[in-house]
Amino acid sequence: MTASELPDDRGRWGADDELGTLNLIDDAARARAAEEVRVGRSVSLALPVEPASMLGGPFAPPSPPSPPVQQALLHTGTPPMGMSEVLIVTPHHPALTHLDAFAHLPVDGVVYPGMPLEDAVTAGGVDHGSTTAFAVGITTRGVLLDLAPGGRLPSAHAITRADLDAAEEHSGAQVLPGDAVVVRSGWGFSWDSEEPAPGMTVDAIRWLHDRGVSLYAGDVGDSFPPTDPQVPMPLHMVALARLGMPLVDSVATDDLAATCAELGRYAFLLSVAPPRLHGLTGVPVNPQAIF
Amino acid sequence: MTASELPDDRGRWGADDELGTLNLIDDAARARAAEEVRVGRSVSLALPVEPASMLGGPFAPPSPPSPPVQQALLHTGTPPMGMSEVLIVTPHHPALTHLDAFAHLPVDGVVYPGMPLEDAVTAGGVDHGSTTAFAVGITTRGVLLDLAPGGRLPSAHAITRADLDAAEEHSGAQVLPGDAVVVRSGWGFSWDSEEPAPGMTVDAIRWLHDRGVSLYAGDVGDSFPPTDPQVPMPLHMVALARLGMPLVDSVATDDLAATCAELGRYAFLLSVAPPRLHGLTGVPVNPQAIF
Amino acid sequence: MTASELPDDRGRWGADDELGTLNLIDDAARARAAEEVRVGRSVSLALPVEPASMLGGPFAPPSPPSPPVQQALLHTGTPPMGMSEVLIVTPHHPALTHLDAFAHLPVDGVVYPGMPLEDAVTAGGVDHGSTTAFAVGITTRGVLLDLAPGGRLPSAHAITRADLDAAEEHSGAQVLPGDAVVVRSGWGFSWDSEEPAPGMTVDAIRWLHDRGVSLYAGDVGDSFPPTDPQVPMPLHMVALARLGMPLVDSVATDDLAATCAELGRYAFLLSVAPPRLHGLTGVPVNPQAIF
Amino acid sequence: MTASELPDDRGRWGADDELGTLNLIDDAARARAAEEVRVGRSVSLALPVEPASMLGGPFAPPSPPSPPVQQALLHTGTPPMGMSEVLIVTPHHPALTHLDAFAHLPVDGVVYPGMPLEDAVTAGGVDHGSTTAFAVGITTRGVLLDLAPGGRLPSAHAITRADLDAAEEHSGAQVLPGDAVVVRSGWGFSWDSEEPAPGMTVDAIRWLHDRGVSLYAGDVGDSFPPTDPQVPMPLHMVALARLGMPLVDSVATDDLAATCAELGRYAFLLSVAPPRLHGLTGVPVNPQAIF
Repeated sequence: MTASELPDDRGRWGADDELGTLNLIDDAARARAAEEVRVGRSVSLALPVEPASMLGGPFAPPSPPSPPVQQALLHTGTPPMGMSEVLIVTPHHPALTHLDAFAHLPVDGVVYPGMPLEDAVTAGGVDHGSTTAFAVGITTRGVLLDLAPGGRLPSAHAITRADLDAAEEHSGAQVLPGDAVVVRSGWGFSWDSEEPAPGMTVDAIRWLHDRGVSLYAGDVGDSFPPTDPQVPMPLHMVALARLGMPLVDSVATDDLAATCAELGRYAFLLSVAPPRLHGLTGVPVNPQAIF
Repeated sequence: MTASELPDDRGRWGADDELGTLNLIDDAARARAAEEVRVGRSVSLALPVEPASMLGGPFAPPSPPSPPVQQALLHTGTPPMGMSEVLIVTPHHPALTHLDAFAHLPVDGVVYPGMPLEDAVTAGGVDHGSTTAFAVGITTRGVLLDLAPGGRLPSAHAITRADLDAAEEHSGAQVLPGDAVVVRSGWGFSWDSEEPAPGMTVDAIRWLHDRGVSLYAGDVGDSFPPTDPQVPMPLHMVALARLGMPLVDSVATDDLAATCAELGRYAFLLSVAPPRLHGLTGVPVNPQAIF
Repeated sequence: MTASELPDDRGRWGADDELGTLNLIDDAARARAAEEVRVGRSVSLALPVEPASMLGGPFAPPSPPSPPVQQALLHTGTPPMGMSEVLIVTPHHPALTHLDAFAHLPVDGVVYPGMPLEDAVTAGGVDHGSTTAFAVGITTRGVLLDLAPGGRLPSAHAITRADLDAAEEHSGAQVLPGDAVVVRSGWGFSWDSEEPAPGMTVDAIRWLHDRGVSLYAGDVGDSFPPTDPQVPMPLHMVALARLGMPLVDSVATDDLAATCAELGRYAFLLSVAPPRLHGLTGVPVNPQAIF
Repeated sequence: MTASELPDDRGRWGADDELGTLNLIDDAARARAAEEVRVGRSVSLALPVEPASMLGGPFAPPSPPSPPVQQALLHTGTPPMGMSEVLIVTPHHPALTHLDAFAHLPVDGVVYPGMPLEDAVTAGGVDHGSTTAFAVGITTRGVLLDLAPGGRLPSAHAITRADLDAAEEHSGAQVLPGDAVVVRSGWGFSWDSEEPAPGMTVDAIRWLHDRGVSLYAGDVGDSFPPTDPQVPMPLHMVALARLGMPLVDSVATDDLAATCAELGRYAFLLSVAPPRLHGLTGVPVNPQAIF
């Protein structure tokens, strides 16, 4: 497959577009989302994170290598005026559920939908393709596509259109334009796994494109090592970078799957509302599936 | 007024309680919330934040003093493997919408509902009264109490029960046990204001208590300087510390007020879902009012 | 031994003293230092530190738990305007050679020479007993006291006056008032040692006091676990906190011992010049022994 | 002037050289340095820095925009186990005296002495041309070249060979191969100066090259705006990048000038010993002139 054969929507919403597939979220999609909210029950799709203490030395608690969030509890006087902290956060850490902005992954030197990297991201910050576009929050209907109900996909499994079709059928819901999908593989972040993880293929990305998916959230992303060395990272380099589809990486899906099974429905209102921080390439988020 | 006359619910839900007034959110409150979701439209209650660049020196963009969020855009190779960053965040900064946990404000050396500070917060971290309690997210019905429709409260105004009654009447909704309130004063964070801000009084806190409010979110908090020097910071030292009522500080309310006016209803599903970080005294959040 | 029997010099140089035993460095001590500089050869007494990368995730280099220094290499444009970084430093980390200021270790609620902790260290910073006192740098004569030439002390060895006397005799130099001592045990920082380390006793601290030592630098400090549970941490809680003797923790001594042996002399000019940062409780430093 | 006419020593000490002009420091230079140490008196060449507090909000002390060093004083229990902090440092900040490594300034995509930037600096860190080369510390003879005794250079003054000759004559010392120079202009860092600063020209860099200067330290660097737009930043883009001459930026020179005048000699032992941190592009330092 050559680059010119990859699905590519750059230009569809103009040369300055900041929203990508979020443009597909219309009143109908929102109304579908609202319809799913019946009991006011919500499920978190975020991995819980225990911040590492920045207090170093022999008396300090052990901290994992390269933690996603570090916490420095502050001294505020004797007695303390209040308890407070400073956090150090690496948003793209795989142990932290986060939302990728377009500027996270330039391909061939350009940021979606075609802005040269040197203009999009300068020494001063991210001027195009940042989290600013969705900092107010994203609300649409979400559908859970469970690729391995009750279990997990085989190691190194290459996820295709057929897998997604089967999961959609299992869900009993139909993915419509503007909907978000939450993809469950039964895998997830592990500090020390050496097993090859499954991943989305270009074929699967085409399915997302065909269906008009507005947002991808999953406990599975790109396989590592790549299934197809010619197109490594299809989710990041095709869906995010060429289709303009924001990605929620490192999603927790087990609670959601359990709730869907319990309630007997696999569609919900999905609220993806990160801290309202502009100008980032990625931002932590706690997506909520609301039933 | 002596300390013993202040409203105090410590012990109501046990000596180890981590939820405080969030205990009041029951199926009925959630069902009321669900009922308000009709069109799938959401409004952000967070202030937008432009991170300050950590690149120092004469070629760097100017940054404000004591910014709430700092961003270091990372070098990831030539050409870059991807764009990424490290953030430094001070969650309790008044320019950043955030959720206060109980451990933020010990009174008389104890954290709600009575844990000695030395046990609740150690060198290793926050063991009690942290953000862990609500890290999955909070969902309930919210009601906008607009204290100054179309304008703002007078400087140094002491907000009382009567103000809240009037705002509730204006809203057309009734605040029921387990509901959250969003209080609008028309004020908000300013880097350089020297005007005395309005603030909640103990009388107003009693109203919240009487009504069974589960969560307070406002563009107004405690007056500064204090109205009553004997009980400075009623919202933090009484509602948060004695009633166990989590607070969302520095809320943006104008978009919400406009939407309520447009739709003609002042109640909504309120989703308060911070990044799922455990063990903090406060955490940035982007509350969503969903209609 | 009761607290009243410990060596204590608080008050000797006044109630506002910021220098402690650095007051002992006089023109004679400086002249002795100058006399030792004959060839212009210098030896570093600092442990080398490899900063941990703050780039997280699967493509990032592994970093140790709780590293003393973290580095975020900055993006400065395409092509880069220059290469730059932000560092996060925990000065008191045992893998980082650093200088302790008095405010690092209050005893019984007071900072040397008797300032209440609440006045010395406020929410705003360190007002007394900080690194400000020696931020210009310290220059005096240093003498190497090698407690285990060519080897290392036994595990858990309690260092006494007799050990220091023997090392002084071995050195051929005499420790005079205002001199600094560099103490070598042959131990040093290890990430995973579980052997009980040797340490200084109150008896050894008395020797330092009797000799008028101005500064202690060592690859050995307080034993852990404590030899005498009644007086844990004699170096920190007596020498630093009661005598006002600044400490250089986590010193590298092998290169120095080799150079002293090669040159046949154990005295040198010692330059201890940390980055000129005011108001800290500790600061990284690279002490230089100059021959 | 074309690039090919600029002084260029890349290759002189081999294709893998990490030391540049520090190769010129030989036993003779060190012996000259030793000869200047007569009384053991030292002077700091570093600007004092007050760290900004990372405690944000209305009760926190004001902090300047883009401070070079930020301090988070840590909570370590009640009562505190000890006082400690975390620092955030931007080494290349102009308010912070620091040492530039070669990797700081690639020209035409290569780092001195010719390593492609992509090999020298990767996502994992700085593999070539970093502070590792001089992390043990630099010791040699220094000579003060005071370009404006008792005053300061005119605004925008272009410093030439003639200025350096005159300053050398005024010093009474002769700059010999392997010596460091400390250049005083009477300017220095200012947070809000808008006056065009003086700066070194290519002519002046040739003088440094001709004399075999090993290290440049100055309160003056490259003029801003550039005097010659064709060769902006001669000190950084020629001396550092093409000659391999490490630079100490933002040096404090007034105390040194006063001491030289008092003692009647302008040469001294110069000790430049930054914290022993490997792999950085720059590092804070407190150079000591020892007499």
